[in-house]
Amino acid sequence: MAAIRIVLVEPKNEGNVGAIARAMKNFAAQDLVLVRPCPLGSEARRRAMHGSDVLEGAKAFQDLEAALEGADLIVGTSGIDTASEKRFARISMTPWDLADRVARLDGTVALLLGREDFGLLDDELLRCDVLVTIPASEAYPILNVSHAAAILLYELGAPRKPRKTPRRASGLEKERLHAALSDLLEATDYPAHKRTRTKIIFRRLLGRAVPTKWEFHALMGVFQRATKRIRQLERRR
Amino acid sequence: MAAIRIVLVEPKNEGNVGAIARAMKNFAAQDLVLVRPCPLGSEARRRAMHGSDVLEGAKAFQDLEAALEGADLIVGTSGIDTASEKRFARISMTPWDLADRVARLDGTVALLLGREDFGLLDDELLRCDVLVTIPASEAYPILNVSHAAAILLYELGAPRKPRKTPRRASGLEKERLHAALSDLLEATDYPAHKRTRTKIIFRRLLGRAVPTKWEFHALMGVFQRATKRIRQLERRR
Repeated sequence: MAAIRIVLVEPKNEGNVGAIARAMKNFAAQDLVLVRPCPLGSEARRRAMHGSDVLEGAKAFQDLEAALEGADLIVGTSGIDTASEKRFARISMTPWDLADRVARLDGTVALLLGREDFGLLDDELLRCDVLVTIPASEAYPILNVSHAAAILLYELGAPRKPRKTPRRASGLEKERLHAALSDLLEATDYPAHKRTRTKIIFRRLLGRAVPTKWEFHALMGVFQRATKRIRQLERRR
Repeated sequence: MAAIRIVLVEPKNEGNVGAIARAMKNFAAQDLVLVRPCPLGSEARRRAMHGSDVLEGAKAFQDLEAALEGADLIVGTSGIDTASEKRFARISMTPWDLADRVARLDGTVALLLGREDFGLLDDELLRCDVLVTIPASEAYPILNVSHAAAILLYELGAPRKPRKTPRRASGLEKERLHAALSDLLEATDYPAHKRTRTKIIFRRLLGRAVPTKWEFHALMGVFQRATKRIRQLERRR
């Protein structure tokens, strides 16, 4: 797993720097490097929230090369994408393709984010191994720089694999539930010609919903209690 | 394709509301609804940038139910995830699972984002059809609300399919390139026992890189020119 370094080139708004420090803390990135930044004061600290250690640990350089030292892959961000082969310097990949690439990498990935108004300049883009563009509306594709950072950290940090999920009801439990429904239909004297259809509809619904054990017990409780109550009342008649 | 409505419940920071309006504009969402919001002034407008029309079109309600009117799927966001079956009200899905679900839906998806400090309250979470949690660091999983909105809009808006890419070099072109390398190795009188290895290394490299037509022409130019120059100089000897 690669380590992510965020390199902000000439950030002009200290609030954005603070917001990026927070987003880094959210996604367990620590390495923040600034190139010719604006002064950082109380607004940066306020926006950093619990990412204040990331902000305080940030290194500042006058020179981009110093900021890139030790990076194994240099990734530029561009709000303007192109598939034009003539403007090859700006041909970029999607964040998820970048995530695939980074997942196969050890070492340090430097993610360059440019100025709030002009982004990265052409000579800075040419220094990058790959470019990434966040797909966005053609009407207004320029994201706030901290939003761009948060989205890329999310995409690079969130492995797209199934997560720990609640325990599913087993096949046997599901069959017990279907049997309980069948008992209930019988107890309610449900019209015989509609029973099959109702059972199938319920089976399809469960099939799509993939119930948890908790949901299985909840439904079983309802069906069994209703059936029992009907049978009790019948005996009292 | 579903339309996304962002519902902010009791936002306390007008800057966040503005930043969310901008992110919505970035991802072509228009429908912003506020429940008991803080006053919105110049800071909200400043942060909205070109999303000012989204901000100005926002509707405000005193009541959550009014904000949810017409929604076909109500999605709550929670910074705290749990797989505990006892805390079932907070069992949530990942943003990408939500994107799968939303992709199969027509109509309106309401995405509820809570207060900056307390998020959504239990009774608000219980009103939701599904919950979503952005996977983040356990040390500090609480994202800035506009970052959470941007990430979810990105995930819901960006179809994970291959994008339009530059034209790839064809198989024939790649073979011409390998032949040009072979000519160059011959022209340079490259040690015979190293030629095969060099050719294989180059073939593997091209295989991984998937070159574009533009890159093919660039490499062909280099190889052919070098070979030609060597042969010219040899003839002059």
